Amino acid sequence: MSGVIKKVAIVGGGVIGGGWAARLMLNGIDVKVFDPSAIAGQTLREMLANAKRAYSKLTLAPHVEQGKLEFVDSIEKAVSDVPFIQESVPEILDVKSSVLEEIGKHAPETALICSSTSGLKPTSLQSEMKCPERFMVGHPFNPVYLLPLVEICGGVQTSEDAKKQAAEFYIEIGMKPLILRKEIDAFIADRLQEAVWREGLWLVRDDVATTQELDDAIRFGFGMRWAQMGLFETYRIAGGEGGVRHFISQFGPTLKWPWSKLTDVPELSEDLIEKIVTQSDMQSGMHSIRDLERIRDDNLVAIMQGLKLHDWGAGAVLKKYEERLYEKAHSGVVSGDPDLSKPLKLHDSEVRPDWLDYNGHMTESRYLQVFGDATDAFLQFIGMNEEYRMQGFSIYTVETHIRHLREVAGGEALSVETQLLGFDEKRFRIVHSMLHPDSGDILATGEHMLLHVDTDEGRACPMGKYLCEKLAIIWSGHQNMVAPVYAGKGIRELK
Amino acid sequence: MSGVIKKVAIVGGGVIGGGWAARLMLNGIDVKVFDPSAIAGQTLREMLANAKRAYSKLTLAPHVEQGKLEFVDSIEKAVSDVPFIQESVPEILDVKSSVLEEIGKHAPETALICSSTSGLKPTSLQSEMKCPERFMVGHPFNPVYLLPLVEICGGVQTSEDAKKQAAEFYIEIGMKPLILRKEIDAFIADRLQEAVWREGLWLVRDDVATTQELDDAIRFGFGMRWAQMGLFETYRIAGGEGGVRHFISQFGPTLKWPWSKLTDVPELSEDLIEKIVTQSDMQSGMHSIRDLERIRDDNLVAIMQGLKLHDWGAGAVLKKYEERLYEKAHSGVVSGDPDLSKPLKLHDSEVRPDWLDYNGHMTESRYLQVFGDATDAFLQFIGMNEEYRMQGFSIYTVETHIRHLREVAGGEALSVETQLLGFDEKRFRIVHSMLHPDSGDILATGEHMLLHVDTDEGRACPMGKYLCEKLAIIWSGHQNMVAPVYAGKGIRELK
Repeated sequence: MSGVIKKVAIVGGGVIGGGWAARLMLNGIDVKVFDPSAIAGQTLREMLANAKRAYSKLTLAPHVEQGKLEFVDSIEKAVSDVPFIQESVPEILDVKSSVLEEIGKHAPETALICSSTSGLKPTSLQSEMKCPERFMVGHPFNPVYLLPLVEICGGVQTSEDAKKQAAEFYIEIGMKPLILRKEIDAFIADRLQEAVWREGLWLVRDDVATTQELDDAIRFGFGMRWAQMGLFETYRIAGGEGGVRHFISQFGPTLKWPWSKLTDVPELSEDLIEKIVTQSDMQSGMHSIRDLERIRDDNLVAIMQGLKLHDWGAGAVLKKYEERLYEKAHSGVVSGDPDLSKPLKLHDSEVRPDWLDYNGHMTESRYLQVFGDATDAFLQFIGMNEEYRMQGFSIYTVETHIRHLREVAGGEALSVETQLLGFDEKRFRIVHSMLHPDSGDILATGEHMLLHVDTDEGRACPMGKYLCEKLAIIWSGHQNMVAPVYAGKGIRELK
Repeated sequence: MSGVIKKVAIVGGGVIGGGWAARLMLNGIDVKVFDPSAIAGQTLREMLANAKRAYSKLTLAPHVEQGKLEFVDSIEKAVSDVPFIQESVPEILDVKSSVLEEIGKHAPETALICSSTSGLKPTSLQSEMKCPERFMVGHPFNPVYLLPLVEICGGVQTSEDAKKQAAEFYIEIGMKPLILRKEIDAFIADRLQEAVWREGLWLVRDDVATTQELDDAIRFGFGMRWAQMGLFETYRIAGGEGGVRHFISQFGPTLKWPWSKLTDVPELSEDLIEKIVTQSDMQSGMHSIRDLERIRDDNLVAIMQGLKLHDWGAGAVLKKYEERLYEKAHSGVVSGDPDLSKPLKLHDSEVRPDWLDYNGHMTESRYLQVFGDATDAFLQFIGMNEEYRMQGFSIYTVETHIRHLREVAGGEALSVETQLLGFDEKRFRIVHSMLHPDSGDILATGEHMLLHVDTDEGRACPMGKYLCEKLAIIWSGHQNMVAPVYAGKGIRELK
C-alpha cells in the first residue's frame, strides 16, 4: 500500500497541515490541500520555503523531485481520488467530527484517513464515519517537516492492518511512528508535555520564574538529555551501576514530597495570560515568528546531524532516510548514459551556513569536503560501491592539489565537473572543477591521485576487471580532452 | 573572588560529586574530595576518564592544565583551606544538615558553600550552620561535567553577594547559572521533571506505554525542541503569527480536559517498580552503564556543537567558554620564545570519532581541517589576530598540496610542525607536517600559498609592517632549513 502512495489530501492547512504538506512534497508526493482560510495559500508557501531551506541543510543526499501542490475548494475534490488523507482542522470535537464524516463520505473506501488531533480520542471521532476501520489518529509534532515522531492511535473500530499501513507510509517519508497500545486522552507525548505546561503555569503564576527562566531551566539542562535518551534511560544512568532500581530508591520518596503543584490545575485568568504574553514578548519579541522558526529549524537540523554521527535516536532515523535517498539517486545515475566527450557532472552541493569561516567565506576544508563528495560520486559511478568495498577493497586518496580561484559565500549553489586524467591498474588521476552552476565560473579546482587498496593487507593492489573496464570507457572519451594547464604543476617558490 | 578560586573541596563523591570533581579538574582547578565510601576513588577515576574523553571531543580549543585530585579522610581536611565547597551527599535532610554544619565549622569564614541538593530548601539546610549567609543551593544536572545548567537558590539567611560570587565562579567553569527569585521545593527544573516523572509512572502503571515507548515519545519529538528553546518559546512559534496568546486560546481549554492524571500521585508499589525495572532492562540492558554514559556524552557533545554553529542556547555557552580557552592559550603562546632553527610546533589535535570515513580512517577533508587549524595557529603566532582582521585585512589560502602518507585512525593524537618556505610583501608559503607526537612518524604533509587581502576591496594588498617583521624573524631561522623535496612539486602523470 504505502509504496504506491504518490498523492495525499491535506484537509486544514495551518501550522500542522502546512507542515504535513511540506514534508510530503519534499518527499516527492503530490499534495491536494483544502482550507477555507483566505491566507492558507500564503502561509503554506512561506512554510514550504522554510522547510526547503531546512531540508537543504538536513542532508547532502540528493533530494527527490518535489511533489506538486494543488489547492482545491472542497473536501470532496481534495479526497475523492487519493489513497491517504491527513486531517488537521482546529481542535474542536464538533468541527473535527463533521469534517471527518465529510472526508469519509467522499474518500475511496480503501483510503487511509488520519487525524492530527493533539488529544481527542479516535473512538469519538470515527463514530459517525463511513468505513471507520481505516481511520486513526496520526499525531505529529511541530515542525512536522523536521520532527520524526508521529503517534498512531486507533479507536475501537480501527483495524490493525490500517495502523500498520499508515506506519509504513510514515516511515517512508522519514518519520518514526509510535503505535499506541491503548486509546487514551492526549496519547503519550502530550500528556507529558501537558504535565510540564501545567507545572510551568503554576511557576509563572506564583512568580517563581519567568517564561525565559523556565525555558532556560529546560534547555540548558534536562532538555538536552531528553533530545537523545528520554526519561527512563537517563534515570537508569543516574542510578549508576544500581540502575533504575537504585534511582527509584533514591527518588521514589520525593513522590510524597511537595515537588509538584499538579494535584491542582491553575486557573487561566486574564491576569495570568497577560503575564505570560508580556514575559514571552520580553524573551522572544526581538525575533519575528518566521525568524524563530528558522532558528529552531537550524537548531533541530544541527541536533539531528549531531545524533546521526552516533547513529542514535532521531539521528538514526535520519541516517536510514538518507540511505534510501542515496539508493534512489544511485539507481538513477547508473541507468543514465553520460556524454563522455566532456567532463562528468556527478555532484551538486550548496554552501551551508556552518561551512563559513570568520571571513564569511567557505572554510578551506569544506572545499576538500565537496571534492571528496565528488570523488565518492565518481567512485559510485564506476561501480566502487558498498558491495565492492565489502570484498575488502577501497580507494584511498594519496595526493591532492587544490587551487582557490574565487571566494564562495553562504547559500551559494555549487556544481562539480570531473575529468579523468589517466589511470593504470592500481591508480587513477582525476581533476574536479567546482563551478557556479548558473554562471559557469570556476571557483576552485581539485586534482587528486587515487590508489586502489586491499584493506585487509593495507597495501595497494590491482583493481578488479569491472572497475578497469569502466575507467577505460570513460578514458576513451576523456583522453581526447585537453588536460588543464595547471594539472601536474606544483606550488611555485617565492624566495 | 571567583577569579582566585584555584582549589575546591568536594564533599560526597558519587555520580554528582564525581561529576563536579571532573568539571573542576578539567578547568584547571585542584580538587580535594572527602567521601567515606570504599569505592569512591574508583568511581571518580572512571568518571574522570569519561569526562576527559568527552572534553577532548567537546572543543578543539587548547585545554588548560588539569587540576590535581586529592582524597582526604575527613571533612575538616577537605574544607579547611579552600575558598569554595560543593556538597553532594545523599538526599536525606538529617544527613545533609549535619554534614553542612560540619563543613561550616571547619571552612574559612569567607568560603562559599553550595549544596547539590535536588530539592531540599536551603533555609532548612542552613539553619544550624556557622556563617549561613555564604551558603546556598547550587543544583547541577547529570552529567555535571557537560550540562551547563546550575540552579542557584538561597535561603532566608543567604546574602545576595554570595549568590553573585557563586554565579561568577560557575560561569568561569563553563556553566549557565540560573539564580532563583524565590525559594521553593525542588526549585524549577526538578519540578518540571517531577511532573513528567509522575505522569510517566501512571502511563507505565496503566500499561499505556513501556519505558521504551515513553522515551521514544520524548526523544523523537518534543525532547529535541526542548534541547534548544524550552517550552514557552516553542509554544510561541506554535501559535503562529498570533504568538503565545493565540496558542493559549487554542490549548487553554485543555487544562480542563483529562489530559493529565496528576491530580493524584501513583503508588510506588513493588509491582510497579518491578515492571519499570524489567522494561528498562529490555530497553537498555544491552549497554553497560559506562557505555550508556559514553553514548549519552557523545550525543550531548554533538548537540552542543550543533547549537554552537548557531550561537544558541547551550551552544552559545560553549562558544563563550571556548573563546576564553583560546584567549588563555594565545596569551601563553605569544609570551613563549620558540626555537627558530627548527619547524614551529603550534597546533595539536586528536582524531574525533565523527571524523572517520567508511574505511574507519580520517576523512580526507579533515586533513585539510587540521592543516587549516595549524595555519590559523601560525597566523595567530605572527599577529594576524581578531584586532588585525577588524582593520579590514585577512589571509586567504590560494593553493594547497596535500600528500597522504599513512592512514590515521580514530582517537589518535596528532601534532603539526610548520616551516616557512618563503614570503614576499603580499604572500607567504608554508608547509605543515602532521605527525604522531610519540613516534614522530609523518602522516601527511600540507603545502600552502597564502595571500594577504584587503577584505573591503576584495583584492591582494601588502601586509602591515608588524606581520612582515614577524615573518622576517621566522625566516631568519627557517631559511637555513632544507626545504622538503616534495615542496613545489606537482602530482605526476599516469598516462
